Amino acid sequence: MSRREPLPWIHEPPPPGSWRSIFKWGDPGTFKHPNARLCDLMRRTFGLDEAAFREPRRPGLAPVAFPEPPGLPEGVLAAFRAVLGEGGVETGAYARLRAGTGKTMLDLLRLREGLAVDLPAAVLHPRNHHEVRRILEICAREGIPATPRGGGSSVTLGLACPRGGVTLDLTRHMHKVLALSEADQTVTVEAGMYGPHLEAVLNAAPELFGTKHRYTCGHFPQSFEWSTVGGWAVTRGAGQNSTYYGKIEDLVAAQTFAAPAGDLRTRAWPRAALGPDLDQLLLGGEGAFGVLTEVTLRIFRHLPETRRRYAYLFPDWEAACGAAREVLQGEDGRPSVFRLSDAEETDIALKLYGVEHPVLDTLLALKGLKPGRRCLLLGTADGEDGQTRVTAAAVARAARAAGALSLSGLVTRAWEHGRFKDPYLREDLQDAGILTDTLECSVTWSNLAQVHRRVREAVHARPRTLCMAHMSHAYPQGGNLYFIFITAMEDIASYLAYQASILDAIRASGASLSHHHGIGRMTAPWLEGQLGSTAMDLLRALKAHLDPGGIMNPGGTLGLDLPGAARR
Amino acid sequence: MSRREPLPWIHEPPPPGSWRSIFKWGDPGTFKHPNARLCDLMRRTFGLDEAAFREPRRPGLAPVAFPEPPGLPEGVLAAFRAVLGEGGVETGAYARLRAGTGKTMLDLLRLREGLAVDLPAAVLHPRNHHEVRRILEICAREGIPATPRGGGSSVTLGLACPRGGVTLDLTRHMHKVLALSEADQTVTVEAGMYGPHLEAVLNAAPELFGTKHRYTCGHFPQSFEWSTVGGWAVTRGAGQNSTYYGKIEDLVAAQTFAAPAGDLRTRAWPRAALGPDLDQLLLGGEGAFGVLTEVTLRIFRHLPETRRRYAYLFPDWEAACGAAREVLQGEDGRPSVFRLSDAEETDIALKLYGVEHPVLDTLLALKGLKPGRRCLLLGTADGEDGQTRVTAAAVARAARAAGALSLSGLVTRAWEHGRFKDPYLREDLQDAGILTDTLECSVTWSNLAQVHRRVREAVHARPRTLCMAHMSHAYPQGGNLYFIFITAMEDIASYLAYQASILDAIRASGASLSHHHGIGRMTAPWLEGQLGSTAMDLLRALKAHLDPGGIMNPGGTLGLDLPGAARR
Repeated sequence: MSRREPLPWIHEPPPPGSWRSIFKWGDPGTFKHPNARLCDLMRRTFGLDEAAFREPRRPGLAPVAFPEPPGLPEGVLAAFRAVLGEGGVETGAYARLRAGTGKTMLDLLRLREGLAVDLPAAVLHPRNHHEVRRILEICAREGIPATPRGGGSSVTLGLACPRGGVTLDLTRHMHKVLALSEADQTVTVEAGMYGPHLEAVLNAAPELFGTKHRYTCGHFPQSFEWSTVGGWAVTRGAGQNSTYYGKIEDLVAAQTFAAPAGDLRTRAWPRAALGPDLDQLLLGGEGAFGVLTEVTLRIFRHLPETRRRYAYLFPDWEAACGAAREVLQGEDGRPSVFRLSDAEETDIALKLYGVEHPVLDTLLALKGLKPGRRCLLLGTADGEDGQTRVTAAAVARAARAAGALSLSGLVTRAWEHGRFKDPYLREDLQDAGILTDTLECSVTWSNLAQVHRRVREAVHARPRTLCMAHMSHAYPQGGNLYFIFITAMEDIASYLAYQASILDAIRASGASLSHHHGIGRMTAPWLEGQLGSTAMDLLRALKAHLDPGGIMNPGGTLGLDLPGAARR
Repeated sequence: MSRREPLPWIHEPPPPGSWRSIFKWGDPGTFKHPNARLCDLMRRTFGLDEAAFREPRRPGLAPVAFPEPPGLPEGVLAAFRAVLGEGGVETGAYARLRAGTGKTMLDLLRLREGLAVDLPAAVLHPRNHHEVRRILEICAREGIPATPRGGGSSVTLGLACPRGGVTLDLTRHMHKVLALSEADQTVTVEAGMYGPHLEAVLNAAPELFGTKHRYTCGHFPQSFEWSTVGGWAVTRGAGQNSTYYGKIEDLVAAQTFAAPAGDLRTRAWPRAALGPDLDQLLLGGEGAFGVLTEVTLRIFRHLPETRRRYAYLFPDWEAACGAAREVLQGEDGRPSVFRLSDAEETDIALKLYGVEHPVLDTLLALKGLKPGRRCLLLGTADGEDGQTRVTAAAVARAARAAGALSLSGLVTRAWEHGRFKDPYLREDLQDAGILTDTLECSVTWSNLAQVHRRVREAVHARPRTLCMAHMSHAYPQGGNLYFIFITAMEDIASYLAYQASILDAIRASGASLSHHHGIGRMTAPWLEGQLGSTAMDLLRALKAHLDPGGIMNPGGTLGLDLPGAARR
């Protein structure tokens, strides 16, 4: 496959009703194909022949068809219709399959094999908090499992319905702005609102709400375009700018929450001393305690004009991490995007961002910045002009002291351009029999080198594997580590064994099992071993109180109703 | 009483063993007497004659003596001694009275009347987490109430023992540094460590631990000298610099916690997505869930040399609050101390800080800064030099735009000089029959004017009253309001009725019942009305799980075991 030859990637929207229309990431008509350099690398790494790229493998273009598990009794469906109207209750195979599926690699592997498992019996479309409450009452009475769903971008099997029941899809109707307070700098929205909608409303607040300033939500996960406010909150998500703005648990000021035990409405006081923090108790519940219906978020002035961008190339990982720590522990404000790639990711990233060039490479090597060792940091500083000057200067100072070379902010602009697009790569790679998946964790600075080394060893224990790692969220006490592994793999059993070996390494290394993806069902078997049984008993007591019938997102979410044998 | 006449305040340490030695604030030999201007103001306001200041009223100089409630069976005491050693178990009247008493106004009124109520049967001095665990096991087995105690500065009846049992005093032994990590910028200490000890250790970290930098804990409540890390954490305290460093719930990175249900050890990952945040669930427990024994705190570089101080006088409260909001919502970093006094407090504060002068007054009035309307903002910016320049400039910009006059940082220095000393005033005032107490709450910006007006009305509903209010902690979404009320009052029933009327006003106005004092038993009757019964049921479920025998700090703490009739 030469660079001149047109690449045979699928570049048509999936046929409506097809398996592929469910597992394909994002917009049906949007694609990000691997560029020629990445293809070359993968061919070399995985030892693939050209045939691998010629014919898409199990592309899922056929219409969805499978033996459906039994549905709900007609009386129950009638009760739901009485609340939601005729159009608010879906029972078709396609709707059920779509609702029970997220973007977990296991979902994708199953769908490519034509496996439809763990589906709800019906998909419900509530129009407001009150209807959610009434649905939960029916479910509690009838003992029907209920699983809330936002944008469906879960990578932790958070949306699977192993016990059937109903999925509550909040995105069709519950996407309204309920209030915007410029005085309090908060916005209250329904939980099913997608990221771009929220951000567009805040950016246009002067025109829409007559505010003095424009605002931003400050929360931009890679799934931004295809995830919802409610999904961010219940999984404790983080955005690419969270080093400055905070994770979603820092941004949620108040919640309206429908639990089987009753409605909980917290208040948006900036801080209080009223016993345990109920917001922080509900955040992270992942649908296992009830349904988050309305969220009040702290918002920020939108100041794109004062943003500063920077990118540095460090001699090695140790030097780069030291500089990152200095930036976060220095008292010069916090950077916003702050993304540090390890050596393996840097080599690939420089290809992707077009920084690679033979002459440049020679120059860099002369400066001690050699392939296989050098590490890329890119990022931004947000805030008013004086603030971004101070913070960007602190980054520059720490970088220089660690022997880094400035690459200018152009690299960051290139990254920004594609910041939400990388997930589109997955389909093309899987069409070629190549699996790319991610696992992420949080670590203290003192444990960072060890976690990085041990998890990379676990990934590379499989021959012919790429392992890209970066830190995308940093704090004075540490950061996250995000591992992307790419390998030629197609069968489910191999994948699960491989993933388990990496999760084993993450936990054994002392890192947290997740920094921002959450636990869902996928990581659940590892949770009790991480938190300890006293802590898990406490979470189970919370669950038993808020959801006494065990109807909320049952079947292993957060390890709350996991059979003992499933624990690792 | 002329200004030249020596004032007859008590200026001797209380006799050892006396009532006064228990209720007097802080160091026995330290005093802060009201200055002549404050005395004049009080005499005029309260219509007191000179006799009021001549003879101390019920000063509590006699030795503690009271009919002691029954103690514990000898077998139980022997079991405690087997764990703690002979000296680790105290049963004397003085030790019991001291242990069951905090610095709540109700405590002070009772002690001045010679009332000894709600005492523990014994005071225990555990030496480490393991001994705490063993004590709780004995208590659980025997059904003996157990109340943890730190510095004893509670103003919410958090230390009273209405059901007897034992007080676990953590201050005698459990004040060690367990670990300091410069890499992770954390310190792990036992919960009974006092503030000055912690700060001294951190300031001297290079000498003590060989660190590169000096550190600060960033947490300086007014009770700093007489309160402990554990007390800060379990009540969700705030320090005077918390606008920059965060409240204690932002500073706690991990905890070791002994609950009757078992030990909980959280981990110091900077952030994680592992379900509900167990730290935020335990913080605020006020001893009702178990005993916090060890705390890992986030610490900060100690940079006194780059601190900037400022003080501004605003034409009125509305202008000052508007400027404060602009500072916190602007993206220029956060001020550290940021303390805004309302008009009544400003007039008194200017007397106390010596800014008052007839010529100055005329000049200020010419600039539109009139007594009875003008409001004082004082504060600092912390961080590296560039950061403090940016933040202090933002404060200056907002102040100028609101018509404020800069008073220079000298006023702030005067305030800093006495920042931990004001509580010493209480004894002198009560010796003169004058009661000064505080209530505090948190508010959103949009509700701030209303809360300020309604709570002031409630305070001033009693004739001849001073009501000083300030905001000492500010956020992009609002701040706290701290009300100091001073009036001639000595009897308990009048005090309780008056305090209840102010708490009614706080809750009715939509403010939170506390920003950083906590709930204890004092505010507990108002809590369910504020949080709602679904939330209170959730807290009660937590309590039932962590403390199934109901032995932890029982008798109304956080409203968890409050009889229905006591709810307001």
